[in-house]
Amino acid sequence: MLSKNQAKNLRALHRKKARREQGLFLVEGEKVVAELLASSWQIDSLYATPEFIGAYQGLIKQAGVVLVECSAAELTAVSTLVSNSAALALVKMPEPTLKPLDTEQAWILALDGINDPGNLGSLLRIADWYGIGQVVCSPMTAEVYNPKVITASKGSFLRVAVSYQPLGAFFNQLPANTAILGAYLEGESIHQLKASPSSGVILLGSEAQGISQELALRVTRKITIPAFGAAESLNVGVAAAVICDNLKRLSTLKSYQS
Amino acid sequence: MLSKNQAKNLRALHRKKARREQGLFLVEGEKVVAELLASSWQIDSLYATPEFIGAYQGLIKQAGVVLVECSAAELTAVSTLVSNSAALALVKMPEPTLKPLDTEQAWILALDGINDPGNLGSLLRIADWYGIGQVVCSPMTAEVYNPKVITASKGSFLRVAVSYQPLGAFFNQLPANTAILGAYLEGESIHQLKASPSSGVILLGSEAQGISQELALRVTRKITIPAFGAAESLNVGVAAAVICDNLKRLSTLKSYQS
Repeated sequence: MLSKNQAKNLRALHRKKARREQGLFLVEGEKVVAELLASSWQIDSLYATPEFIGAYQGLIKQAGVVLVECSAAELTAVSTLVSNSAALALVKMPEPTLKPLDTEQAWILALDGINDPGNLGSLLRIADWYGIGQVVCSPMTAEVYNPKVITASKGSFLRVAVSYQPLGAFFNQLPANTAILGAYLEGESIHQLKASPSSGVILLGSEAQGISQELALRVTRKITIPAFGAAESLNVGVAAAVICDNLKRLSTLKSYQS
Repeated sequence: MLSKNQAKNLRALHRKKARREQGLFLVEGEKVVAELLASSWQIDSLYATPEFIGAYQGLIKQAGVVLVECSAAELTAVSTLVSNSAALALVKMPEPTLKPLDTEQAWILALDGINDPGNLGSLLRIADWYGIGQVVCSPMTAEVYNPKVITASKGSFLRVAVSYQPLGAFFNQLPANTAILGAYLEGESIHQLKASPSSGVILLGSEAQGISQELALRVTRKITIPAFGAAESLNVGVAAAVICDNLKRLSTLKSYQS
């Protein structure tokens, strides 16, 4: 059973301020909590139904977490999900460690002020699908520990390293010849990229304003998704997926040819 | 000013039952209402702020609609949007006319039970971007006049014809040699489609269950989006965009070559 204090604290973590103060965030729902238990992330405590505990005994034991058994109704009452009939974990925010930059091997996604938590979560899932292990966010981008981001990422937050820093400063650390591809409504068609790079940065602007003027100066190539109809734009996550798909296709083709 | 009765009726239209009974649905927000006014869709009435009315006088006069001036606060109180500081229109549902099938010229999107209104709206926007004018939905798919669908489509509902029918019966009406490409997690890679068709049906399954068994038998080719990382799946809208992008790229290439 959940105590009043436990319930109060779990609900407090719906808000950014409490997450910051405690260095903890929520992971909710059966599938993603099971994935979390199997990962190396540090779990503070686990709130789960008897059914969940029965199904995942082995993983729970292995993870050695503080376990609180509760009902589905109790879980739903403290969850951000409309219904949560399985599990909720309190997870420690990892120390923000900057991985050594690996632009020679792979793509990095750089996000210039993505506001919508659902979009950020979706972008993490897409990065994970396309094997992009690193997402660098401008300070104005949504907070990765927002429950909406975690839920929309469908577990991909476990595998994609997310950091926050001014993107101008981030670009300064990159080798001078790093390709910085900026997504624009007008640019080179990604269907016909000539001499496409096989690593670098994919820069996406905010939903409303696009890439900021300051960062536009750093873009080495403006790329665009060809339109065949009348829609004015694509959602930023959708656009990211189409861009990643083309870049990965081109670099795979290249490795076949060489 | 909005009368109590007007406000009550607008709020009633948040629900499917009232929409069905009245044959009306809501279109909300400045940009999409402006697009609507410029279209040939039949508008029952328009609720707008003095600022909106001033900015779009010409379009409003041309459309010849019943106009109710109200404040942004009044609009927000009857809107499904968190804030609506401009306009809301009541629009007549068009008669469900089945366009003559045009599979020889273009792609049709077939949706097998897409549940989430946000996903359906997103799919309409993607269809519109890729010049797909027709979306055929199984009866279990979300209702296109749900305000969340209309909002997520960003005006694309105005340009993409949506119909509802059992997909088996729909496939029976197609010419025998029509390509029906089904999106699966395992299938032919869309990066290396051999002899890719330049028209036909793209069939997408529901978020949770994928393509139903009955319809799987009708699929002429199973296609898949190659994965490069560890995410288990992509969102259905994201998947649709990547598939459309590849098919359009291939048919454009073909028309260059021939």
